[in-house]
Amino acid sequence: MTDPAATPRFITLEGLEGAGKSTAMAFVREWFESRGETVLCTREPGGTPLAEELRAVLKAVRDEPVAPSTELLLMFAARAQHVERVIRPAMAEGKVVVCDRFTDSTRAYQGAGRGLSMATIDQLAEVAHADCNPELTLWLDVPVALGLERAASRESADRFEQETLAFFERVRHGFEALATREPARFRRVDATRPLAEVRARIEAELEATHGR
Amino acid sequence: MTDPAATPRFITLEGLEGAGKSTAMAFVREWFESRGETVLCTREPGGTPLAEELRAVLKAVRDEPVAPSTELLLMFAARAQHVERVIRPAMAEGKVVVCDRFTDSTRAYQGAGRGLSMATIDQLAEVAHADCNPELTLWLDVPVALGLERAASRESADRFEQETLAFFERVRHGFEALATREPARFRRVDATRPLAEVRARIEAELEATHGR
Repeated sequence: MTDPAATPRFITLEGLEGAGKSTAMAFVREWFESRGETVLCTREPGGTPLAEELRAVLKAVRDEPVAPSTELLLMFAARAQHVERVIRPAMAEGKVVVCDRFTDSTRAYQGAGRGLSMATIDQLAEVAHADCNPELTLWLDVPVALGLERAASRESADRFEQETLAFFERVRHGFEALATREPARFRRVDATRPLAEVRARIEAELEATHGR
Repeated sequence: MTDPAATPRFITLEGLEGAGKSTAMAFVREWFESRGETVLCTREPGGTPLAEELRAVLKAVRDEPVAPSTELLLMFAARAQHVERVIRPAMAEGKVVVCDRFTDSTRAYQGAGRGLSMATIDQLAEVAHADCNPELTLWLDVPVALGLERAASRESADRFEQETLAFFERVRHGFEALATREPARFRRVDATRPLAEVRARIEAELEATHGR
Protein backbone atom coordinates (compact mmCIF):
# COMPACT_ATOMS: atom_id res chain seq x y z
CA MET A 1 0.00 0.00 0.00
CA THR A 2 1.19 3.52 -0.67
CA ASP A 3 2.65 4.95 2.50
CA PRO A 4 4.15 8.42 2.11
CA ALA A 5 6.15 7.91 5.27
CA ALA A 6 7.91 4.88 3.80
CA THR A 7 11.47 5.06 2.50
CA PRO A 8 11.39 6.75 -0.90
CA ARG A 9 11.78 4.32 -3.76
CA PHE A 10 13.71 5.50 -6.79
CA ILE A 11 14.89 2.93 -9.30
CA THR A 12 16.76 3.57 -12.52
CA LEU A 13 17.41 1.52 -15.63
CA GLU A 14 20.66 1.88 -17.51
CA GLY A 15 22.31 0.44 -20.55
CA LEU A 16 23.07 1.02 -24.21
CA GLU A 17 20.30 1.77 -26.69
CA GLY A 18 18.73 -1.55 -27.68
CA ALA A 19 19.51 -3.17 -24.33
CA GLY A 20 15.82 -3.62 -23.53
CA LYS A 21 15.29 -0.90 -20.94
CA SER A 22 11.66 -0.28 -21.90
CA THR A 23 10.76 -3.94 -21.49
CA ALA A 24 12.61 -4.05 -18.19
CA MET A 25 10.73 -0.95 -17.06
CA ALA A 26 7.43 -2.74 -17.66
CA PHE A 27 8.63 -5.66 -15.51
CA VAL A 28 9.58 -3.29 -12.67
CA ARG A 29 6.28 -1.45 -12.91
CA GLU A 30 4.28 -4.69 -12.81
CA TRP A 31 6.24 -6.01 -9.86
CA PHE A 32 5.48 -2.93 -7.77
CA GLU A 33 1.88 -2.60 -8.98
CA SER A 34 1.17 -6.20 -8.05
CA ARG A 35 2.11 -5.12 -4.50
CA GLY A 36 -0.41 -2.26 -4.57
CA GLU A 37 2.14 0.49 -5.19
CA THR A 38 1.64 3.50 -7.43
CA VAL A 39 4.46 3.69 -9.93
CA LEU A 40 5.64 6.67 -11.96
CA CYS A 41 7.62 5.68 -15.04
CA THR A 42 9.66 8.42 -16.62
CA ARG A 43 12.78 8.93 -18.74
CA GLU A 44 15.85 11.05 -19.30
CA PRO A 45 16.77 13.31 -20.82
CA GLY A 46 13.20 14.58 -20.60
CA GLY A 47 10.24 14.00 -18.33
CA THR A 48 8.82 17.55 -18.32
CA PRO A 49 7.87 19.76 -21.28
CA LEU A 50 10.98 21.92 -20.80
CA ALA A 51 13.26 18.92 -20.28
CA GLU A 52 11.79 17.28 -23.40
CA GLU A 53 12.68 20.45 -25.34
CA LEU A 54 16.23 20.00 -24.08
CA ARG A 55 16.13 16.33 -25.09
CA ALA A 56 15.32 17.42 -28.65
CA VAL A 57 18.16 19.97 -28.57
CA LEU A 58 20.57 17.28 -27.33
CA LYS A 59 19.57 14.60 -29.80
CA ALA A 60 19.24 16.76 -32.93
CA VAL A 61 21.72 15.94 -35.66
CA ARG A 62 23.32 19.33 -36.43
CA ASP A 63 26.19 20.85 -38.40
CA GLU A 64 27.45 22.74 -35.36
CA PRO A 65 29.66 20.45 -33.28
CA VAL A 66 28.37 20.27 -29.71
CA ALA A 67 31.16 20.90 -27.18
CA PRO A 68 31.42 18.05 -24.64
CA SER A 69 31.00 20.50 -21.75
CA THR A 70 27.86 21.93 -23.41
CA GLU A 71 26.37 18.45 -23.72
CA LEU A 72 27.25 17.71 -20.10
CA LEU A 73 25.69 20.91 -18.74
CA LEU A 74 22.58 20.45 -20.88
CA MET A 75 22.09 16.91 -19.57
CA PHE A 76 22.20 18.21 -16.03
CA ALA A 77 19.94 21.17 -16.82
CA ALA A 78 17.29 18.75 -18.08
CA ARG A 79 17.88 16.52 -15.06
CA ALA A 80 17.57 19.36 -12.54
CA GLN A 81 14.20 20.27 -14.03
CA HIS A 82 13.02 16.66 -14.08
CA VAL A 83 14.05 16.04 -10.48
CA GLU A 84 12.52 19.26 -9.20
CA ARG A 85 9.23 19.08 -11.11
CA VAL A 86 8.56 15.35 -11.38
CA ILE A 87 10.78 12.97 -9.41
CA ARG A 88 10.86 14.70 -6.02
CA PRO A 89 7.10 15.49 -6.00
CA ALA A 90 6.24 11.88 -6.97
CA MET A 91 8.49 10.50 -4.23
CA ALA A 92 6.96 12.92 -1.73
CA GLU A 93 3.55 11.49 -2.65
CA GLY A 94 4.80 8.00 -1.85
CA LYS A 95 5.06 6.84 -5.44
CA VAL A 96 7.70 4.47 -6.69
CA VAL A 97 9.71 6.30 -9.36
CA VAL A 98 11.25 4.27 -12.16
CA CYS A 99 13.44 6.20 -14.56
CA ASP A 100 14.91 5.17 -17.90
CA ARG A 101 18.46 6.61 -17.58
CA PHE A 102 19.79 8.99 -14.93
CA THR A 103 23.21 10.27 -13.84
CA ASP A 104 24.86 6.88 -14.43
CA SER A 105 24.21 7.41 -18.16
CA THR A 106 26.06 10.71 -17.89
CA ARG A 107 28.93 8.91 -16.17
CA ALA A 108 29.00 6.30 -18.93
CA TYR A 109 28.35 8.45 -22.03
CA GLN A 110 29.88 11.82 -21.18
CA GLY A 111 32.42 10.49 -18.65
CA ALA A 112 33.70 7.18 -20.03
CA GLY A 113 32.53 7.85 -23.60
CA ARG A 114 33.69 11.43 -24.10
CA GLY A 115 36.42 11.45 -21.47
CA LEU A 116 34.96 14.15 -19.21
CA SER A 117 36.09 14.13 -15.60
CA MET A 118 34.11 11.99 -13.15
CA ALA A 119 34.81 14.54 -10.41
CA THR A 120 33.15 17.23 -12.55
CA ILE A 121 30.16 14.97 -13.18
CA ASP A 122 29.82 14.33 -9.45
CA GLN A 123 29.94 18.11 -8.79
CA LEU A 124 27.20 18.74 -11.34
CA ALA A 125 25.11 15.90 -9.90
CA GLU A 126 25.31 17.70 -6.58
CA VAL A 127 24.10 20.94 -8.19
CA ALA A 128 21.32 19.28 -10.18
CA HIS A 129 19.89 16.72 -7.73
CA ALA A 130 21.92 16.73 -4.50
CA ASP A 131 20.51 13.96 -2.31
CA CYS A 132 18.04 12.61 -4.88
CA ASN A 133 19.72 9.42 -6.06
CA PRO A 134 18.44 5.97 -7.03
CA GLU A 135 18.83 3.30 -4.42
CA LEU A 136 18.73 0.56 -7.05
CA THR A 137 19.96 0.67 -10.64
CA LEU A 138 19.41 -2.18 -13.05
CA TRP A 139 22.03 -2.23 -15.78
CA LEU A 140 20.73 -4.06 -18.82
CA ASP A 141 23.96 -5.25 -20.33
CA VAL A 142 24.30 -6.26 -23.97
CA PRO A 143 27.34 -6.42 -26.23
CA VAL A 144 27.63 -3.23 -28.27
CA ALA A 145 26.98 -4.92 -31.60
CA LEU A 146 23.74 -6.49 -30.41
CA GLY A 147 22.46 -3.25 -28.85
CA LEU A 148 23.18 -1.28 -32.01
CA GLU A 149 21.51 -3.92 -34.16
CA ARG A 150 18.34 -3.78 -32.05
CA ALA A 151 18.35 0.02 -31.91
CA ALA A 152 18.96 0.38 -35.65
CA SER A 153 15.75 -1.47 -36.44
CA ARG A 154 13.71 1.18 -34.66
CA GLU A 155 14.20 4.65 -36.11
CA SER A 156 16.70 6.95 -37.74
CA ALA A 157 19.87 7.52 -35.75
CA ASP A 158 20.01 10.59 -33.48
CA ARG A 159 23.23 12.46 -32.66
CA PHE A 160 24.26 9.89 -30.05
CA GLU A 161 23.43 6.89 -32.18
CA GLN A 162 25.76 8.24 -34.87
CA GLU A 163 28.74 7.68 -32.61
CA THR A 164 31.47 5.14 -33.39
CA LEU A 165 31.66 1.55 -32.15
CA ALA A 166 34.71 2.54 -30.07
CA PHE A 167 32.59 5.18 -28.31
CA PHE A 168 29.91 2.64 -27.36
CA GLU A 169 32.58 0.21 -26.15
CA ARG A 170 33.88 2.92 -23.83
CA VAL A 171 30.31 3.58 -22.64
CA ARG A 172 29.81 -0.11 -21.89
CA HIS A 173 33.07 -0.17 -19.95
CA GLY A 174 31.84 2.90 -18.10
CA PHE A 175 28.79 0.94 -16.95
CA GLU A 176 31.04 -1.95 -15.98
CA ALA A 177 33.16 0.39 -13.86
CA LEU A 178 30.02 1.57 -12.05
CA ALA A 179 29.06 -2.02 -11.28
CA THR A 180 32.49 -2.48 -9.73
CA ARG A 181 32.41 0.82 -7.84
CA GLU A 182 28.92 0.40 -6.39
CA PRO A 183 28.09 -3.31 -6.45
CA ALA A 184 25.20 -3.07 -3.98
CA ARG A 185 23.31 -0.43 -5.96
CA PHE A 186 24.39 -0.92 -9.56
CA ARG A 187 23.27 -4.42 -10.58
CA ARG A 188 24.16 -6.02 -13.89
CA VAL A 189 21.40 -7.91 -15.69
CA ASP A 190 22.49 -10.01 -18.65
CA ALA A 191 20.15 -8.73 -21.33
CA THR A 192 21.20 -11.31 -23.91
CA ARG A 193 19.23 -13.97 -21.99
CA PRO A 194 15.67 -15.00 -22.91
CA LEU A 195 13.06 -12.51 -21.72
CA ALA A 196 11.59 -14.80 -19.05
CA GLU A 197 15.03 -15.15 -17.54
CA VAL A 198 15.68 -11.39 -17.65
CA ARG A 199 12.35 -10.87 -15.91
CA ALA A 200 13.14 -13.43 -13.22
CA ARG A 201 16.51 -11.80 -12.61
CA ILE A 202 14.97 -8.34 -12.28
CA GLU A 203 12.29 -9.65 -9.93
CA ALA A 204 14.94 -11.32 -7.80
CA GLU A 205 16.80 -8.00 -7.53
CA LEU A 206 13.59 -6.21 -6.55
CA GLU A 207 12.74 -8.92 -4.04
CA ALA A 208 16.17 -8.57 -2.43
CA THR A 209 16.04 -4.79 -2.17
CA HIS A 210 12.34 -3.92 -1.97
CA GLY A 211 10.62 -7.12 -0.83
CA ARG A 212 8.89 -7.02 2.53
CA MET B 1 47.28 46.09 -36.02
CA THR B 2 46.08 42.57 -35.36
CA ASP B 3 48.83 40.58 -33.73
CA PRO B 4 47.81 37.03 -32.80
CA ALA B 5 50.73 36.87 -30.39
CA ALA B 6 49.41 39.81 -28.39
CA THR B 7 47.64 39.35 -25.07
CA PRO B 8 44.11 38.14 -25.79
CA ARG B 9 41.53 40.89 -25.41
CA PHE B 10 38.14 39.91 -24.02
CA ILE B 11 35.83 42.65 -22.80
CA THR B 12 32.34 42.23 -21.43
CA LEU B 13 29.43 44.60 -20.88
CA GLU B 14 27.11 44.12 -17.95
CA GLY B 15 24.05 45.77 -16.49
CA LEU B 16 20.29 45.60 -16.25
CA GLU B 17 18.14 45.55 -19.37
CA GLY B 18 17.78 49.12 -20.57
CA ALA B 19 21.16 50.16 -19.19
CA GLY B 20 22.49 50.94 -22.66
CA LYS B 21 24.78 47.96 -23.25
CA SER B 22 24.24 47.94 -27.04
CA THR B 23 25.23 51.59 -27.37
CA ALA B 24 28.23 51.01 -25.13
CA MET B 25 29.22 48.04 -27.28
CA ALA B 26 29.28 50.28 -30.37
CA PHE B 27 31.61 52.70 -28.52
CA VAL B 28 33.97 49.87 -27.57
CA ARG B 29 33.96 48.49 -31.11
CA GLU B 30 34.73 51.91 -32.62
CA TRP B 31 37.51 52.56 -30.16
CA PHE B 32 39.31 49.33 -31.09
CA GLU B 33 38.56 49.59 -34.82
CA SER B 34 39.99 53.10 -34.91
CA ARG B 35 43.22 51.43 -33.74
CA GLY B 36 43.15 48.92 -36.61
CA GLU B 37 41.87 46.01 -34.54
CA THR B 38 39.36 43.42 -35.71
CA VAL B 39 36.50 43.24 -33.25
CA LEU B 40 34.00 40.45 -32.72
CA CYS B 41 30.82 41.62 -31.01
CA THR B 42 28.67 38.88 -29.57
CA ARG B 43 26.10 38.31 -26.83
CA GLU B 44 24.88 35.94 -24.16
CA PRO B 45 22.99 33.80 -23.76
CA GLY B 46 23.52 32.97 -27.41
CA GLY B 47 26.23 33.58 -29.97
CA THR B 48 25.99 30.26 -31.85
CA PRO B 49 22.94 28.63 -33.45
CA LEU B 50 22.73 26.05 -30.62
CA ALA B 51 23.30 28.67 -27.92
CA GLU B 52 20.63 30.89 -29.50
CA GLU B 53 18.23 27.92 -29.30
CA LEU B 54 19.03 27.77 -25.59
CA ARG B 55 18.50 31.53 -25.29
CA ALA B 56 14.99 31.04 -26.67
CA VAL B 57 14.37 28.17 -24.22
CA LEU B 58 15.59 30.35 -21.32
CA LYS B 59 13.60 33.45 -22.24
CA ALA B 60 10.33 31.79 -23.22
CA VAL B 61 7.41 32.67 -21.00
CA ARG B 62 6.02 29.27 -19.97
CA ASP B 63 3.52 27.69 -17.60
CA GLU B 64 6.08 25.26 -16.25
CA PRO B 65 8.13 26.96 -13.50
CA VAL B 66 11.82 26.78 -14.34
CA ALA B 67 13.86 25.48 -11.40
CA PRO B 68 16.67 27.91 -10.45
CA SER B 69 19.27 25.14 -10.86
CA THR B 70 17.88 24.35 -14.33
CA GLU B 71 18.21 27.99 -15.37
CA LEU B 72 21.74 28.11 -13.98
CA LEU B 73 22.89 24.97 -15.78
CA LEU B 74 21.27 26.10 -19.04
CA MET B 75 23.05 29.46 -18.88
CA PHE B 76 26.36 27.68 -18.52
CA ALA B 77 25.52 25.16 -21.25
CA ALA B 78 24.93 28.03 -23.67
CA ARG B 79 28.11 29.74 -22.42
CA ALA B 80 30.28 26.63 -22.82
CA GLN B 81 29.16 26.34 -26.44
CA HIS B 82 29.72 30.04 -27.12
CA VAL B 83 33.20 30.04 -25.59
CA GLU B 84 34.24 26.85 -27.37
CA ARG B 85 32.85 27.70 -30.81
CA VAL B 86 33.14 31.49 -30.99
CA ILE B 87 35.06 33.28 -28.25
CA ARG B 88 38.16 31.10 -28.00
CA PRO B 89 38.60 30.79 -31.81
CA ALA B 90 38.20 34.57 -32.27
CA MET B 91 40.75 35.27 -29.55
CA ALA B 92 43.13 32.74 -31.08
CA GLU B 93 42.87 34.68 -34.37
CA GLY B 94 43.91 37.85 -32.56
CA LYS B 95 40.48 39.45 -32.57
CA VAL B 96 39.17 41.63 -29.78
CA VAL B 97 36.06 39.95 -28.37
CA VAL B 98 33.34 42.16 -26.90
CA CYS B 99 30.45 40.31 -25.30
CA ASP B 100 27.10 41.62 -24.11
CA ARG B 101 26.75 39.74 -20.77
CA PHE B 102 28.88 36.87 -19.48
CA THR B 103 29.36 35.04 -16.18
CA ASP B 104 28.94 38.26 -14.16
CA SER B 105 25.31 38.34 -15.31
CA THR B 106 24.94 34.83 -13.92
CA ARG B 107 26.44 36.01 -10.63
CA ALA B 108 24.03 38.96 -10.53
CA TYR B 109 20.80 37.35 -11.84
CA GLN B 110 21.05 33.73 -10.69
CA GLY B 111 23.36 34.39 -7.71
CA ALA B 112 22.22 37.67 -6.16
CA GLY B 113 18.78 37.65 -7.84
CA ARG B 114 17.70 34.05 -7.25
CA GLY B 115 19.90 33.33 -4.26
CA LEU B 116 22.00 30.55 -5.78
CA SER B 117 25.41 29.92 -4.25
CA MET B 118 28.34 31.95 -5.62
CA ALA B 119 30.61 28.95 -4.96
CA THR B 120 28.41 26.81 -7.22
CA ILE B 121 28.48 29.50 -9.90
CA ASP B 122 32.27 29.63 -9.73
CA GLN B 123 32.43 25.82 -10.04
CA LEU B 124 30.23 25.89 -13.13
CA ALA B 125 32.27 28.74 -14.62
CA GLU B 126 35.30 26.48 -14.26
CA VAL B 127 33.48 23.66 -16.10
CA ALA B 128 32.11 25.92 -18.85
CA HIS B 129 35.01 28.24 -19.61
CA ALA B 130 37.92 27.56 -17.22
CA ASP B 131 40.61 30.15 -17.97
CA CYS B 132 38.58 32.14 -20.52
CA ASN B 133 37.58 35.23 -18.57
CA PRO B 134 37.21 38.92 -19.45
CA GLU B 135 40.06 41.14 -18.40
CA LEU B 136 37.81 44.20 -18.45
CA THR B 137 34.10 44.45 -17.67
CA LEU B 138 32.14 47.65 -18.11
CA TRP B 139 29.11 47.75 -15.84
CA LEU B 140 26.51 50.14 -17.22
CA ASP B 141 24.74 51.11 -14.05
CA VAL B 142 21.24 52.57 -14.01
CA PRO B 143 18.63 52.68 -11.26
CA VAL B 144 16.20 49.79 -11.64
CA ALA B 145 13.21 52.00 -12.46
CA LEU B 146 15.02 53.76 -15.29
CA GLY B 147 16.33 50.52 -16.82
CA LEU B 148 12.88 48.94 -16.72
CA GLU B 149 11.31 52.03 -18.26
CA ARG B 150 13.76 51.98 -21.17
CA ALA B 151 13.47 48.21 -21.64
CA ALA B 152 9.66 48.32 -21.53
CA SER B 153 9.52 50.63 -24.53
CA ARG B 154 11.23 48.02 -26.70
CA GLU B 155 9.31 44.76 -26.86
CA SER B 156 7.09 42.43 -24.91
CA ALA B 157 8.57 41.19 -21.65
CA ASP B 158 10.42 37.85 -21.68
CA ARG B 159 10.57 35.49 -18.68
CA PHE B 160 13.32 37.53 -16.98
CA GLU B 161 11.69 40.88 -17.65
CA GLN B 162 8.58 39.64 -15.86
CA GLU B 163 10.47 39.52 -12.57
CA THR B 164 9.64 41.80 -9.65
CA LEU B 165 11.27 45.13 -8.81
CA ALA B 166 12.77 43.50 -5.72
CA PHE B 167 14.46 40.92 -7.96
CA PHE B 168 16.08 43.61 -10.12
CA GLU B 169 17.20 45.50 -7.01
CA ARG B 170 18.98 42.34 -5.85
CA VAL B 171 20.54 41.99 -9.30
CA ARG B 172 21.82 45.56 -9.21
CA HIS B 173 23.28 44.96 -5.75
CA GLY B 174 24.89 41.85 -7.18
CA PHE B 175 26.68 43.98 -9.76
CA GLU B 176 27.67 46.40 -7.03
CA ALA B 177 29.19 43.55 -5.03
CA LEU B 178 31.25 42.52 -8.06
CA ALA B 179 32.59 46.06 -8.43
CA THR B 180 33.68 45.88 -4.81
CA ARG B 181 35.15 42.39 -5.12
CA GLU B 182 37.11 43.04 -8.32
CA PRO B 183 37.61 46.79 -8.63
CA ALA B 184 40.39 46.56 -11.23
CA ARG B 185 38.40 44.46 -13.68
CA PHE B 186 34.76 45.32 -12.97
CA ARG B 187 34.33 49.04 -13.71
CA ARG B 188 31.17 50.97 -13.00
CA VAL B 189 29.98 53.41 -15.67
CA ASP B 190 27.18 55.75 -14.65
CA ALA B 191 24.69 55.14 -17.45
CA THR B 192 22.33 57.90 -16.36
CA ARG B 193 24.82 60.49 -17.71
CA PRO B 194 24.49 62.05 -21.17
CA LEU B 195 25.70 59.77 -23.96
CA ALA B 196 28.82 61.83 -24.77
CA GLU B 197 29.89 61.55 -21.16
CA VAL B 198 29.24 57.79 -21.05
CA ARG B 199 31.33 57.43 -24.21
CA ALA B 200 34.19 59.49 -22.76
CA ARG B 201 34.13 57.41 -19.61
CA ILE B 202 34.24 54.13 -21.56
CA GLU B 203 37.07 55.41 -23.73
CA ALA B 204 39.01 56.45 -20.65
CA GLU B 205 38.62 52.93 -19.25
CA LEU B 206 39.82 51.41 -22.52
CA GLU B 207 42.72 53.84 -22.70
CA ALA B 208 43.77 52.86 -19.19
CA THR B 209 43.60 49.11 -19.79
CA HIS B 210 44.19 48.68 -23.53
CA GLY B 211 45.92 51.89 -24.64
CA ARG B 212 49.43 51.50 -25.93
